Amino acid sequence: MNFADRLAAAIEEKGTPSLVGIDPRYAMLPAELKSGDHPDRATAAAALEAFGIRIVDAVAPLVPAVKPNIAFFEAFGWEGYRAYGNVVARAKEKGLLVVADAKRGDIGSTAEAYAVALFDEMDVDAVTLSPYLGTDSLKPFFDRFDRGKGCFLLVKTSNPSSADLQDRELAGGTVFEAVADLTRTWGEAFIGESGMSSVGAVVGATFPEQAAELRKRMPTTPFLLPGYGAQGGKADSLRNAFGPGGSGALVNSSRGIIFAFGKEPYASEFGEDRWEEAVHAATLAMRADLAGAVPDATWAG
Amino acid sequence: MNFADRLAAAIEEKGTPSLVGIDPRYAMLPAELKSGDHPDRATAAAALEAFGIRIVDAVAPLVPAVKPNIAFFEAFGWEGYRAYGNVVARAKEKGLLVVADAKRGDIGSTAEAYAVALFDEMDVDAVTLSPYLGTDSLKPFFDRFDRGKGCFLLVKTSNPSSADLQDRELAGGTVFEAVADLTRTWGEAFIGESGMSSVGAVVGATFPEQAAELRKRMPTTPFLLPGYGAQGGKADSLRNAFGPGGSGALVNSSRGIIFAFGKEPYASEFGEDRWEEAVHAATLAMRADLAGAVPDATWAG
Repeated sequence: MNFADRLAAAIEEKGTPSLVGIDPRYAMLPAELKSGDHPDRATAAAALEAFGIRIVDAVAPLVPAVKPNIAFFEAFGWEGYRAYGNVVARAKEKGLLVVADAKRGDIGSTAEAYAVALFDEMDVDAVTLSPYLGTDSLKPFFDRFDRGKGCFLLVKTSNPSSADLQDRELAGGTVFEAVADLTRTWGEAFIGESGMSSVGAVVGATFPEQAAELRKRMPTTPFLLPGYGAQGGKADSLRNAFGPGGSGALVNSSRGIIFAFGKEPYASEFGEDRWEEAVHAATLAMRADLAGAVPDATWAG
Repeated sequence: MNFADRLAAAIEEKGTPSLVGIDPRYAMLPAELKSGDHPDRATAAAALEAFGIRIVDAVAPLVPAVKPNIAFFEAFGWEGYRAYGNVVARAKEKGLLVVADAKRGDIGSTAEAYAVALFDEMDVDAVTLSPYLGTDSLKPFFDRFDRGKGCFLLVKTSNPSSADLQDRELAGGTVFEAVADLTRTWGEAFIGESGMSSVGAVVGATFPEQAAELRKRMPTTPFLLPGYGAQGGKADSLRNAFGPGGSGALVNSSRGIIFAFGKEPYASEFGEDRWEEAVHAATLAMRADLAGAVPDATWAG
């Protein structure tokens, strides 16, 4: 089954395009999961794993997909890398789609090794990829799309410095628009029954005007919209990043959900001891926020 | 303590700018290190580690630095990731500079986690980084350059599809030229006594004309030149990628050295049983090839 179709079906089933990013920092974990301020790597990695698994359990009934970011696990060495795989495995057991946020991108033979690591060994459903090296750096991933896999290419990222290169003017447009055109073209071979492609795009929720323009430019490309919540992206401004009926987009929140227990109103209502309830409540609030922003969405019905 | 100065000193000490890329594929390992054709992950990772360590031991007297590529280790899961760390540790024990070929690139907070993983935990000397996300994605790495760390940014990569994006025409130049200008600018704060910066650039040895132009455009930027050997780059064509006296460049060979035992003339001369001698001979040949191509190099003296 085509990844874009699996994604569309999961969004309809769960009634939301909310994507929960799992970006754990040891210092921010709930006290019950920590072992002092300076644990050894194995202890810290075990804490990240326990946290990630409980986040998965808390949000699995509420969202179609999670996006664990491998950097925060690699920060604890191979023990962290192992923990990442275990969080991925739990998410799959719970029936969630898993987008591995890994931002990989290398020449063809190396890209093949990354595709083995993420698609063959870890068996994630999709992966974030850098487009900077062009077609042959993506082909090993595309070659696995017949197994239902997909990707999200970095087109216009959510960070302040994304303008440094991505907003540069080319003859006839910007660099990110050129990447958008490449992404749409690369995706044409992988369009599913839903009308969307398995080749998606990362488009920062922090740049809603560009997101709306890119939606017109890439009508068959699923968007992964990071930057909602903690980075300042607002649901209302994202309406035009969706396709007809609220299709074709996932909105990601990481810190705003997984560390909700540290922020109001959740800090007062639940406190650190009841952090999973805070995760649950913050996810419900995100769902409602998105449903309000895209009232004609089929998934909001 | 500046990375560019450490690199220049190591090149002079070893008498060559040869960089050995460690990109192991299980199927290509010498028979003595393999355990059948379909080992479990832990067994395969152990074979990669043994191979990587013996490559390090074989080339340590001959070259200033190695460039282990993490993708080929990640292909064997956390066991592979652990093996990577152990190969890095061995290279450091042997006094080699280690360039972690990881091509990371993410928004600031995530980049910080990657910087922890590679610079703080694994303690490599330099890392390859994607520039696509701009300044804030690089800052966590730059913030560690006062500890002697450095990086090589992807400017013009060695693969055939690098033209897809990198060769696009901007107003006043191509995308890769714009990245070159950014790289030079980013590097200005990190120029050492050698006159070179800790912010280096990856420039494909497969594109010698662009490499020569980029040398003029980035006079204080150390180049990492991949694509020599197996990808077709020739030493003679790289003369103009060096600065005065053969300064400011590392030339990488991966497959051409680590799997030399499978290629002529080494296959006939040594065979698979004496694969480390083939590695040694291929490294010596590369040293001689580069010294012949850059006869005025101070390191060739």
